[in-house]
Amino acid sequence: MKFIHSSDWHLGRQLHGESLIEQQRLALQQIAQLAVEHQVDALVIAGDIYDRSIPPAAAVTLLSDFLDEMIAEHQIPVLLTAGNHDSAERLGFAANQMKRSGLHIVGSLTAELTPILLQGKSGAAWFYPISYAEPTAVRHLLDDDSITSHEQAMAAMLAQVAAHSSEGLPKVVVAHCFLDGSSESESERPLSVGGADRISPALFTPFDYAALGHLHGPQYRAAEHVRYSGSPLKYSFSEATQRKSVTLVELKPSQPAVITLLPITAARDVRIIEGSLAELLERAKDDPHADDYLMVRLSDTHALLDPMGKLRSRYPNVLHLERTGLMTQQQDRDIGRERIKKGELEMFSDFFSQVAGELLTEAQQQHLHGLIDELHQGEDA
Amino acid sequence: MKFIHSSDWHLGRQLHGESLIEQQRLALQQIAQLAVEHQVDALVIAGDIYDRSIPPAAAVTLLSDFLDEMIAEHQIPVLLTAGNHDSAERLGFAANQMKRSGLHIVGSLTAELTPILLQGKSGAAWFYPISYAEPTAVRHLLDDDSITSHEQAMAAMLAQVAAHSSEGLPKVVVAHCFLDGSSESESERPLSVGGADRISPALFTPFDYAALGHLHGPQYRAAEHVRYSGSPLKYSFSEATQRKSVTLVELKPSQPAVITLLPITAARDVRIIEGSLAELLERAKDDPHADDYLMVRLSDTHALLDPMGKLRSRYPNVLHLERTGLMTQQQDRDIGRERIKKGELEMFSDFFSQVAGELLTEAQQQHLHGLIDELHQGEDA
Repeated sequence: MKFIHSSDWHLGRQLHGESLIEQQRLALQQIAQLAVEHQVDALVIAGDIYDRSIPPAAAVTLLSDFLDEMIAEHQIPVLLTAGNHDSAERLGFAANQMKRSGLHIVGSLTAELTPILLQGKSGAAWFYPISYAEPTAVRHLLDDDSITSHEQAMAAMLAQVAAHSSEGLPKVVVAHCFLDGSSESESERPLSVGGADRISPALFTPFDYAALGHLHGPQYRAAEHVRYSGSPLKYSFSEATQRKSVTLVELKPSQPAVITLLPITAARDVRIIEGSLAELLERAKDDPHADDYLMVRLSDTHALLDPMGKLRSRYPNVLHLERTGLMTQQQDRDIGRERIKKGELEMFSDFFSQVAGELLTEAQQQHLHGLIDELHQGEDA
Repeated sequence: MKFIHSSDWHLGRQLHGESLIEQQRLALQQIAQLAVEHQVDALVIAGDIYDRSIPPAAAVTLLSDFLDEMIAEHQIPVLLTAGNHDSAERLGFAANQMKRSGLHIVGSLTAELTPILLQGKSGAAWFYPISYAEPTAVRHLLDDDSITSHEQAMAAMLAQVAAHSSEGLPKVVVAHCFLDGSSESESERPLSVGGADRISPALFTPFDYAALGHLHGPQYRAAEHVRYSGSPLKYSFSEATQRKSVTLVELKPSQPAVITLLPITAARDVRIIEGSLAELLERAKDDPHADDYLMVRLSDTHALLDPMGKLRSRYPNVLHLERTGLMTQQQDRDIGRERIKKGELEMFSDFFSQVAGELLTEAQQQHLHGLIDELHQGEDA
């Protein structure tokens, strides 16, 4: 059994108010190509398919078209589960009527897990999809008052996986959860506050592979086969240095999983660039990816006129601006305030040079000096 | 080919703020029973499946469970199209992956119609599903600037049906539209204003059956086989006297359709009752359906204390109250005003008898008389 593990597509998501649907379409195209190229037997998506319980219609159409391509065109079965961002009920609509085509959508968690046997050219395996559910929901489902934590809820569901006879075939758990010790990104919505959502990675090690979703950075915990694929795209600037990928998994009975990360290259990367305004505007000329989604950290310590406008003339997709130069100054705030009080001449000089594109002449400086003195005398009167 | 034609389920709809989901569940149960009982080869639902483009999750689950029952349990194929209340994109999600199971969901209208051949124990037929689309959308789809009206848009789509070779099998058109001369109900949302949505019924007569949706009262136009099934439930008090049903259609090649209306009995009817408050409260004792959804028309011409509260103590689902007695009086408003001025004694007597449940005694009337006189003397002073 050879399959691609992915998760956290968050279709319909925006980045700082910017629609990512076109980037998502391109990422999905790459995933389809990789699936065909590597002749996988299945594609597994471990939750957070959509970004919201009611996704925009364009996201619904994007996923529908993608599934059509995978299944009708490439005959590659797809298994997807609901994450904490999805509406399990909505995602699970008519799921039973899709199975025969090879589309396995698992919406609301049920008391009894439904194992799915996928048979591929590279052999068969059992998949155990566990859609995301709150511990209280699991307690209610299983009618077991002892379940109060995420860990207990997951343990109860995994007991079913352990009890199921796979007749020697590999067992793959598909779940959406937070493993203790994992690295977070800013684009994840916590499952609960104060760390109560943490689950011991050891719960998953007995199975042949755990295809996990929720965390956006690719990583594994406890063992290489207990793994987050991570999201296919960067959904926050905190992920700027992550390398996004999908996970290719090859399973043979009684052998450890063979795992390969297949990179996904965003058409528009999400990056952070730093420097002075002048440096960055200069650097843009040699930047073939100047249209990336950018967070800009400006080191300038003086006032700047419309830096966002200037940056966007060269970098059209600057989404966020940080004045790190000014922020450092904050530490010397008191000194700074004094400087501002004294420095009308300096401030006006900065302003003038930015608007006019040239420095004040000696004569202009003299004139300005006179004016400022005059104003200050007015104050004293 | 024997099938049931229904439409306008409006799942998730409310009646005067009251959820109808339980009534809808019961109606769908009846439809499933009728389908099994009559051994139909298919169920066809001609649009307005949901009441809103984003239906409540409970409505999604209701439909999903129903489809599961029809298809997985009873092996009866279901064909449904989008109406003007549905989001065609959302309804059409993963539709291609459902076909093999016998679930044919037709979301967004496409330039080329996709005829569906359904093969049943009672023979085969071609179905031509035409989801609702605005004329501007059809003009754009077909790239035909001459299409400006609903009639032209439908004619263009039907030309494809006419051109398709059914090889002697019956042709069934499934459409959501407003046929000229049809009877409206208050619960329909007009497709356009000022009658521009009207389509000539003659467009549909050439086909073996037209399974239409949009209008909530069962009716046919131009010929018996050009037919609205109507909604399975009453969705406004304007439908109080309608008899709701689904339509059983039997088709044999080159023979007229045999049509039978199969009644749907609402667990809670939608009715209008009229009379004085006292009469209606009395009548409730012998009304086995006192929990129906009611509009009450009160004939009383005098002031009443909390009539809604009193009615609901006997009829728990009164949704709307009309004071027809007072409304008639409006015409004699001036006379009425005089009467109110003069009639403090009468008004207080009414009030007293309603609150205390008994009439004023002779002594109390005397006392009241005295009080009123005293007050009037105070006014004159």
